[in-house]
Amino acid sequence: MNGAESLLRTLVGSGVEVCFGNPGTSEMHFVAALDRVEGMRTVLGLFEGVVTGMADGYGRMAEKPAATLLHLGPGLANGLANLHNARRAATPIVNIVGDHATYHAQYDAPLASDVRGFARPVSGWVHSSVSARTVAADGARAVQAALQYPGQIATLILPADTAWLEADHPAPALPKPLPATASAEAIDQAAVALKSGRKTMLLIRGAALKESGLNAAGRIAATSGARIACDTFAPRCQRGAGRVKVERVPYFAEQIVEFMKGTQQLILVGANPPVSFFAYPNKPSWCTPDDCKILHLAHVHEDGTAALEALADAVKAARDPAHIGSPGKPDIPAGPLNPQTAGQIIAHFLPDGAIISDEGATAGGGMHRFAANIAPHDHLALTGGAIGQGIPLATGAAVACPDRKVVCLHGDGGAMYTPQALWTQVRESLDVTTVIFANRSYAILNIELARVGAGEAGPKAFSMLDLHNPELDWVKLASGMGVEASRATSVEGFASQFASAMSNRGPRLIEVVL
Amino acid sequence: MNGAESLLRTLVGSGVEVCFGNPGTSEMHFVAALDRVEGMRTVLGLFEGVVTGMADGYGRMAEKPAATLLHLGPGLANGLANLHNARRAATPIVNIVGDHATYHAQYDAPLASDVRGFARPVSGWVHSSVSARTVAADGARAVQAALQYPGQIATLILPADTAWLEADHPAPALPKPLPATASAEAIDQAAVALKSGRKTMLLIRGAALKESGLNAAGRIAATSGARIACDTFAPRCQRGAGRVKVERVPYFAEQIVEFMKGTQQLILVGANPPVSFFAYPNKPSWCTPDDCKILHLAHVHEDGTAALEALADAVKAARDPAHIGSPGKPDIPAGPLNPQTAGQIIAHFLPDGAIISDEGATAGGGMHRFAANIAPHDHLALTGGAIGQGIPLATGAAVACPDRKVVCLHGDGGAMYTPQALWTQVRESLDVTTVIFANRSYAILNIELARVGAGEAGPKAFSMLDLHNPELDWVKLASGMGVEASRATSVEGFASQFASAMSNRGPRLIEVVL
Repeated sequence: MNGAESLLRTLVGSGVEVCFGNPGTSEMHFVAALDRVEGMRTVLGLFEGVVTGMADGYGRMAEKPAATLLHLGPGLANGLANLHNARRAATPIVNIVGDHATYHAQYDAPLASDVRGFARPVSGWVHSSVSARTVAADGARAVQAALQYPGQIATLILPADTAWLEADHPAPALPKPLPATASAEAIDQAAVALKSGRKTMLLIRGAALKESGLNAAGRIAATSGARIACDTFAPRCQRGAGRVKVERVPYFAEQIVEFMKGTQQLILVGANPPVSFFAYPNKPSWCTPDDCKILHLAHVHEDGTAALEALADAVKAARDPAHIGSPGKPDIPAGPLNPQTAGQIIAHFLPDGAIISDEGATAGGGMHRFAANIAPHDHLALTGGAIGQGIPLATGAAVACPDRKVVCLHGDGGAMYTPQALWTQVRESLDVTTVIFANRSYAILNIELARVGAGEAGPKAFSMLDLHNPELDWVKLASGMGVEASRATSVEGFASQFASAMSNRGPRLIEVVL
Repeated sequence: MNGAESLLRTLVGSGVEVCFGNPGTSEMHFVAALDRVEGMRTVLGLFEGVVTGMADGYGRMAEKPAATLLHLGPGLANGLANLHNARRAATPIVNIVGDHATYHAQYDAPLASDVRGFARPVSGWVHSSVSARTVAADGARAVQAALQYPGQIATLILPADTAWLEADHPAPALPKPLPATASAEAIDQAAVALKSGRKTMLLIRGAALKESGLNAAGRIAATSGARIACDTFAPRCQRGAGRVKVERVPYFAEQIVEFMKGTQQLILVGANPPVSFFAYPNKPSWCTPDDCKILHLAHVHEDGTAALEALADAVKAARDPAHIGSPGKPDIPAGPLNPQTAGQIIAHFLPDGAIISDEGATAGGGMHRFAANIAPHDHLALTGGAIGQGIPLATGAAVACPDRKVVCLHGDGGAMYTPQALWTQVRESLDVTTVIFANRSYAILNIELARVGAGEAGPKAFSMLDLHNPELDWVKLASGMGVEASRATSVEGFASQFASAMSNRGPRLIEVVL
């Protein structure tokens, strides 16, 4: 077998089941090997930002890495923004990036570039294979690196001749890295703190935002009165009726300060103290009260769920968690169609077990206020602030969870970054409903322009934030990629279209005109 | 004035007239300053790959840098693939990349990343401002760096506080760097070589592919019998009836070998010896005959036109150049619509002074065989092989040359990378006609799969190269972004639609179904 086949067999043997890709000439031996090896599903994206965003969505839900297949430096470059988001989500991903044959590099052909340089800012692990004989072992190491707890991006650069030359055999899978255990001291200190009676917040990030971690947190809260919170942009959070409620840290600095006010002790579980998303003149970046004591119960590489469970035991927590969301979905609203009523409609119809890919930006908040009381669901946020994540993320999540409804909430500005993912949803018959909040602007920036103290927008400034001229027609855009699409201009219209999307399978897009 | 305004005034004072951008919060002070400073046109792109591709098209035609305005590391990252192309084109560009305020970096907020790391692989010059007081001077240096002959990418990272804090005044423009002069020895040696009577090829790249450089080359050819050639992917080449004909180096290695056969002397003018675009097993990467003598008449940083003129004098060249293209546009063809007949129709109707942005890939070749005999035009190629250049490049060229018709020839696979540029064409009322060659596949890859010896494509491999399922509807996609669009399925239909597009102004798109 050649190097490409030895690598592919190694990836499959190491548990990688899906390859999201957009290959080129230098990846053709890897592509050809796909038909000789069982067990690797291939999903084509029409742009690399789609490919990497899908790998992120897949990894967050499957909790194991997908492979990406990318074409030299520029192919990787196109995927970097969503790899930035994936890095912030700590999603395990194995990038396979083709490159020129080792002996061809000296000629500086047009596509030659500093592939390692492109990879470094987003990758926890980067390696460029030097021989077909070592590619398989490099692949096994890449998978293990991607699984380094809690997950990271491993980029394996594959020169074309290391793919096409003769190799020996696949490499055995390496042991899956386990999370470290939080220190006994950290648990003791947190227990002492909780017993002090001071006002405490548990700030959680990572896998502990799933049900078992939240249950432990809820038990601690039942005994100690601690608040339970997560980042504004937690990678994945399990919410809904019957689950322990989590307060979401708000977005703007002064809101965070208000949110944190009175907190005397902040116990961190895989999280950092909340800071302002951007800096603003004369507004704080650091939002934790000065006199608040900060304790690290579990660092990011430690098992936060186990730490919470140990802490619950240490404080002799009640068996039943506090803050359980009671069932109670909202009614279908009346009145004009706006982010609030649209969110209420989404909350009403959301089916059990749905996955929400949330890049709703200024318009996405309408459903969150109901989140604790509606059908249990997973919420996936825009972790790194690089817009253009939502549609690819939803697509990858649907690949990982074919039996669950995926709902993508998206601002129109960000959705124009990676609309090509809609095409993949059709090709792969994925059950994704995309809701485009069409306010015809980068609405957040109109807010931010004032907040940063830059004054009123003149006509030129305004033209950089406004999407009215010309207006985007999302029904045409989506149907141009084969997605069934409709436009809603009233609550009745949106309720009917969204209800229909929830009760049928397959890709749908609804443009909510705001 | 604040730092942003001092920078903007410096850019304008240094001759930068256009800012292509997609800003975010950290760029809001720069955006707000746009209304306080005369002389900077702003053009919004809905994705940063569009922004940087427009800056490339503008720079190739205006021969001076535009500014880009990009949002932190991920905004820059989205623009990197077209910056790779621009680097290969030696296009002058000044990137202004916003970043977190200097004091905010310590908090590692979600959008924080290694901006310098993203910038380095494409930038000849990178600097991150440290103070509002120095931003203006940094801007002047960035413009000068971009103009370093023949042109390069200068990336100025602008932390938000260096934009909003008080600055002193704009910085004076720095002298424009001049090209170096080719050495007298190089001219003497080339003259001696030409007089030897050995078979000689002049391989030219850069500004010498404009009329005056080509005239000098044509005069040398008239006296010496030398062939005149340019790279397959020359950034800009002036072609058409009445101009000196240039042979274009073909794409595939074995074609290049054939093209170069018998060449005893290769005289390079801003070019490198031709090499294979990709490496292939058992095919050569180096395509110049082993016994061919290679002479550097002008290096890439030297004035190639002046060197050719000096060489023409040194060999006492005839006054009239050889190889002048005689006028003779082809007839409108009959028969089926295919790349050849489509190309013939384009050649027939192309107006005087048109600019062709060529990412036609496997389908774009149809018009080139007529290029020397049709209306004089500029041809802009996909310089770095990173697909998704063509539509943005056409858009930027149209901003630079509002009185010239721009024709964009594009394969459908590549066009899906950066279709958002169509929206900017409407917003800016640009005179661009986009022809999409819709073969529903990454057609080049079907060819390459066989060429690299990877064997027949099985169903999985084929699925990574094929765009049929679902079929893209370019008429819907374009009209979803406000562009008047139509579909051609016959030569008559395409001839009529293309003729109409050439005789009217404004954005148009024609999907040629192949």
